[in-house]
Amino acid sequence: MNDDVVGIGLLGCGTVGGALVELLAAESATIAARTGLTLEIRRVAVRDVAAAAARVPSLDRSVFTNDAAAVVADPAIDVVVEVMGGIDPARELVLAALAAHKPVVTANKALLASHGPELHAAAAAARVDLLFEAAVAGGIPLVRPLRESLLGEPIRRVMGIVNGTTNYILTRMAEQGVSYDEALVEAQELGYAEADPTADVGGADAAAKAAILATIAFGVDVHVDDVATEGITGISAADIAFAHRNGYVVKLLAIAETDPGDPGRRVAVRVHPALIDHDHPLASVRLSFNAVFVEGEAVGQLMFYGPGAGGGPTASAVLGDLIDAASNRLQGSSASLGVLAPVEIVPLDELRCGYYLNVQVTDEPGVLAAVAGAFGSNGVSIRSMVQEGQGDAAGLAFITHVARESDLRATIAELDGLDAVRRIGSVIRLVGEES
Amino acid sequence: MNDDVVGIGLLGCGTVGGALVELLAAESATIAARTGLTLEIRRVAVRDVAAAAARVPSLDRSVFTNDAAAVVADPAIDVVVEVMGGIDPARELVLAALAAHKPVVTANKALLASHGPELHAAAAAARVDLLFEAAVAGGIPLVRPLRESLLGEPIRRVMGIVNGTTNYILTRMAEQGVSYDEALVEAQELGYAEADPTADVGGADAAAKAAILATIAFGVDVHVDDVATEGITGISAADIAFAHRNGYVVKLLAIAETDPGDPGRRVAVRVHPALIDHDHPLASVRLSFNAVFVEGEAVGQLMFYGPGAGGGPTASAVLGDLIDAASNRLQGSSASLGVLAPVEIVPLDELRCGYYLNVQVTDEPGVLAAVAGAFGSNGVSIRSMVQEGQGDAAGLAFITHVARESDLRATIAELDGLDAVRRIGSVIRLVGEES
Repeated sequence: MNDDVVGIGLLGCGTVGGALVELLAAESATIAARTGLTLEIRRVAVRDVAAAAARVPSLDRSVFTNDAAAVVADPAIDVVVEVMGGIDPARELVLAALAAHKPVVTANKALLASHGPELHAAAAAARVDLLFEAAVAGGIPLVRPLRESLLGEPIRRVMGIVNGTTNYILTRMAEQGVSYDEALVEAQELGYAEADPTADVGGADAAAKAAILATIAFGVDVHVDDVATEGITGISAADIAFAHRNGYVVKLLAIAETDPGDPGRRVAVRVHPALIDHDHPLASVRLSFNAVFVEGEAVGQLMFYGPGAGGGPTASAVLGDLIDAASNRLQGSSASLGVLAPVEIVPLDELRCGYYLNVQVTDEPGVLAAVAGAFGSNGVSIRSMVQEGQGDAAGLAFITHVARESDLRATIAELDGLDAVRRIGSVIRLVGEES
Repeated sequence: MNDDVVGIGLLGCGTVGGALVELLAAESATIAARTGLTLEIRRVAVRDVAAAAARVPSLDRSVFTNDAAAVVADPAIDVVVEVMGGIDPARELVLAALAAHKPVVTANKALLASHGPELHAAAAAARVDLLFEAAVAGGIPLVRPLRESLLGEPIRRVMGIVNGTTNYILTRMAEQGVSYDEALVEAQELGYAEADPTADVGGADAAAKAAILATIAFGVDVHVDDVATEGITGISAADIAFAHRNGYVVKLLAIAETDPGDPGRRVAVRVHPALIDHDHPLASVRLSFNAVFVEGEAVGQLMFYGPGAGGGPTASAVLGDLIDAASNRLQGSSASLGVLAPVEIVPLDELRCGYYLNVQVTDEPGVLAAVAGAFGSNGVSIRSMVQEGQGDAAGLAFITHVARESDLRATIAELDGLDAVRRIGSVIRLVGEES
């Protein structure tokens, strides 16, 4: 057997796995010419062998099995590719592969965001690769640039549009003026959103990616539960129209940043809708595209843009990792994150930024003074205010100067107690203009 | 001596070299913590030792020398960083370092674009790294993603805004309506443009980067002389205003693409101003920023955005390569491009795209028919035409359907021979709408 033939075991063969099989078949000659490697898919673990074999006719039926543990243990398998998703049994299978000194390529963001440290430590102990380019921002080469190209760069902040479903919804609301509900139905019809869209629109999907981004950007242990998370379900057409009139765009951002007072030991990680200036590079990221904006002290501002999901793009990212893992294995090298440093998570209360608030009040004398007083008594300074009459009620849209989150929360509590305040609508943070 | 202490020899210590020394000093603790590597700048070759030592006081004066060859040959030097620029003596020094099995990190685009194959072959023969992230698009991590992450991806086209000076000029012309000359003076005052701006505005700088982009995207041997090059000196305020009214932006693009009929064996490489749709991700790349847009069959569309020049960003890219080279050296691995495959360059005449033309004609009966006839007789179909009267003359702005470059050239020659045509103004290709 030629040493440069690498046996691949595939765990899962859905959209991504199927696309990987095709891509590998089409590109194997080029890969061999450029690297000397022959990547051979030898076994594929699936739930339903007959269905998978029918869907992927280019692989011999004997390759398919429903015994995933046997694929991992098979001595003919040199590298394991996990594209089955979910935590169980993916976690056990990945750990078993690493324990057997087999490099693992995974696209599983949920697994990494909840069990990352355990997996990275296992890879480091076994001195084999655990690669996961496809787990964040789909097809965008991001993990390798952050881990390798920018390893020496003092990164201060990473901000990403990492959920295509919500970006599609926000784009359609902004550009076509459709309502949130209409845009969501469109996204479902196009296959961008699940029948139950909670994980997307509620921010949980973005939170898992935020945890992974923080881990790779800062080399620290961040768990999905550390991520302060808000989704887009409260965003109204009026908020988006207000943003547009004032030169902003509303985007759902995953943000990971170091504490400037103590970089390296304190990290803030959050997911929430944000107003960003329409000239900001993230503002022009439309529809279901993803992008990650990186700010470093030496390099300045970088952005990585591309498709965040889909079989082809995800398979492309998996294939890049697969070639890397196979080639490292032959060279006897590896590139794991190792044991992640513990880190203190900065509480959201310490955040300092500008805020947009929409407050519905009764339209009568003295109301504005009372409302403005609630800001003033909590030390929150108003940058601009627009009043729009609505029958016997009025809508007030505020933008504040940079304030502390805890002060803003106190302001909202005080506003909520005023008789004249009917409802506090959206509260959206301004990003890119912090002090 | 600890094996993980790596001796660095720096050739050149101008803006980039100086920034690298500072960055390395600030980040060495982090780098050591994450990689176990201590990177030590042991010798620095400069023309004027006294001036360099005064400018970089953090290095001991004894580190500086004006004997670059001695730095390369010094057994205490494990990795050579070439940031001196120019072809001679950079070429000899890099070859000498590679021949001595010392990895080389270079930021020298001119050297790579004119002697790339020789250098890559020398690195492959010596089995050491030749890394050059900083040579294209400054601080943007681009070379590593293209070479590694996308190694298995069938890339069809790479299009970049790779010259910050011209992008600054075009942005100011478009957004503030200043003239080309005014914008150029501004760029010079800001330090973006040289006193002699020919290499930037004439396209030569972008052409060198286009050659390198083609080489890494397709793994083939492309020389700067293979690049069909046009600069921005002919672009007028009227062209930019027309583009804006019609939903386009004018950008100077470096484009490398495979021939769809024969990918892998025929490559087209060119630099020219282009009209791109205002929704295209490249359209929102403003001022002196760079961006490279990559189209792959599996991954779809990617874009890498960031600062294309400057000491800090370039030093950041050099440092990423340096860590990689040092760590590969300890692991005994390397990642050179190897021997580049020869490739046929597709002649510009075979290009097929839409065109914008500005034609000044005398304003009299029958002229439009004669002008339209010149398009028709050469098989070029007009998509839209706008006439703007100007005293006894009229300006005609055409956009054609997709046509062959050779047919467009024949049309221009025929137009040029018409009595009614006073002047052919700009001819700008439309990019992103090819058939």
